[in-house]
Amino acid sequence: MFQERLKEVAGLVETRLQKALADDANQPVTEAMRYTLRGGKRLRAFLVMESARLHGIKDALNAAAAVEALHAYSLVHDDLPCMDDDDLRRGQPTIHVKWDQATAVLAGDALQTLAFDLLSDPACHHDPAVRIALVSGMAKASGIRGMVLGQALDIAAETAPDPLTLEQITELQAGKTGALIEWSATAGAVLGQADTTPLATYARDLGLAFQIWDDVLDVEGDATKVGKAVGKDSDAGKATFVSLLGLDGAKARARALIDDAEAALVPYGKDAETLRECARFVISREM
Amino acid sequence: MFQERLKEVAGLVETRLQKALADDANQPVTEAMRYTLRGGKRLRAFLVMESARLHGIKDALNAAAAVEALHAYSLVHDDLPCMDDDDLRRGQPTIHVKWDQATAVLAGDALQTLAFDLLSDPACHHDPAVRIALVSGMAKASGIRGMVLGQALDIAAETAPDPLTLEQITELQAGKTGALIEWSATAGAVLGQADTTPLATYARDLGLAFQIWDDVLDVEGDATKVGKAVGKDSDAGKATFVSLLGLDGAKARARALIDDAEAALVPYGKDAETLRECARFVISREM
Repeated sequence: MFQERLKEVAGLVETRLQKALADDANQPVTEAMRYTLRGGKRLRAFLVMESARLHGIKDALNAAAAVEALHAYSLVHDDLPCMDDDDLRRGQPTIHVKWDQATAVLAGDALQTLAFDLLSDPACHHDPAVRIALVSGMAKASGIRGMVLGQALDIAAETAPDPLTLEQITELQAGKTGALIEWSATAGAVLGQADTTPLATYARDLGLAFQIWDDVLDVEGDATKVGKAVGKDSDAGKATFVSLLGLDGAKARARALIDDAEAALVPYGKDAETLRECARFVISREM
Repeated sequence: MFQERLKEVAGLVETRLQKALADDANQPVTEAMRYTLRGGKRLRAFLVMESARLHGIKDALNAAAAVEALHAYSLVHDDLPCMDDDDLRRGQPTIHVKWDQATAVLAGDALQTLAFDLLSDPACHHDPAVRIALVSGMAKASGIRGMVLGQALDIAAETAPDPLTLEQITELQAGKTGALIEWSATAGAVLGQADTTPLATYARDLGLAFQIWDDVLDVEGDATKVGKAVGKDSDAGKATFVSLLGLDGAKARARALIDDAEAALVPYGKDAETLRECARFVISREM
């Protein structure tokens, strides 16, 4: 059920994203945006759509598309030579490889803007108060107290004399990936003007487990499945959840977090089954 | 009166911007944000504050700070080696020179986010519908149909076989600087929930005149006053308003636009005197 729904959401979101760029001129920057908005697991969009469904919201596509646009911006900039310097993303050449760095910077910039554009559109929700709550939440999740802080801490760690502690790496990941996952999973409650607490707890556990599993895949993964270079972090001597907890310890920690995530969904009963499946997927995925 | 008000606005906006970052950790990226948010003419903030005053809005500081954060993001990214490759901005080393490129990319990213954060805050306006209108307008002014498109056209022009025509360069500048100037000058009417038409006309004429005058300064300016390298565009053989219209022709066109801009302010009577002075300043400035 989870895989079918993930696939369905991916199709819907991709259509909405490509539509958002349909009228734009064929500049390299728009081509690059369209290119990078293709594919991906769409886990964040799925979280938006499923949390919306739990609250009786039928159309959450603008919010789902917005978070994927924001996520895409972060990937494009993270892949730049001055950042993580990755040539491959989802098995395809990254934008600065296929076009050039200027196009990658601009496409990332415009993808961030597109996210806020999609959220502020009346198609997102009829009530401006709801739309502004989503905008405000996304600005906080993605800015200097969220995603950008996480990325900055990650870069600082590269040249730090000592490897990060477990506490530091947890803070880093809470910013880098956790904040946006939390925004996604709570978006449905915001759209439904309901309590966001249970979904926020679910998302924090899920987000951390997701990141731990990424570190596991960096050690155990198959590059052809992961779609990018593996062994990069461990080879670089960077602290990861695996280097700090050991491979078995990291897996056990991820599993415990997923148990907690599932427990947080109790208030939603059987309706939350797909979100439970999603949590289990996070620690079984091979990419 | 204009100069005093500009200086007053600059002080107020700088305080608001530094306050927005006051609680943040001393990472290079936050230091770089604080560094780049210091100084500048604050013309966009002035337009927000003065158009707000015309509509009886007492506090427009969040909107004014937001547009300066967005403008700062565009400058930081435009200065990158892969874009315009400028080492100097307002007479000071640019971020990628003082820190590094990764810090410049991230600081620019976070400055864009900060702009949307400031607009979505209740301190911006009590009515969510007004805040979302400002967010939506800024997303459109700064995204792939506004500022980013202008910058992309500018980069494409560098390698185009033929220099741009007057029509093309006007379209480029309308996106690159015009859209955000229009957002700024109409922000007061949006905050006051009034008709934006007269201020939009004023802003379009002002924005184009501003850009023409930048080209004039690139030829006639004194690098110590302009605060960045001059003669760069003309040396590079790029089409500019001066190369297309001649120096006298460009000046005459800018003056005609400023006459039109002043005419658009008639509905506001004497209250708009500072905005009129601002228009005249744009074509008399030496930096």
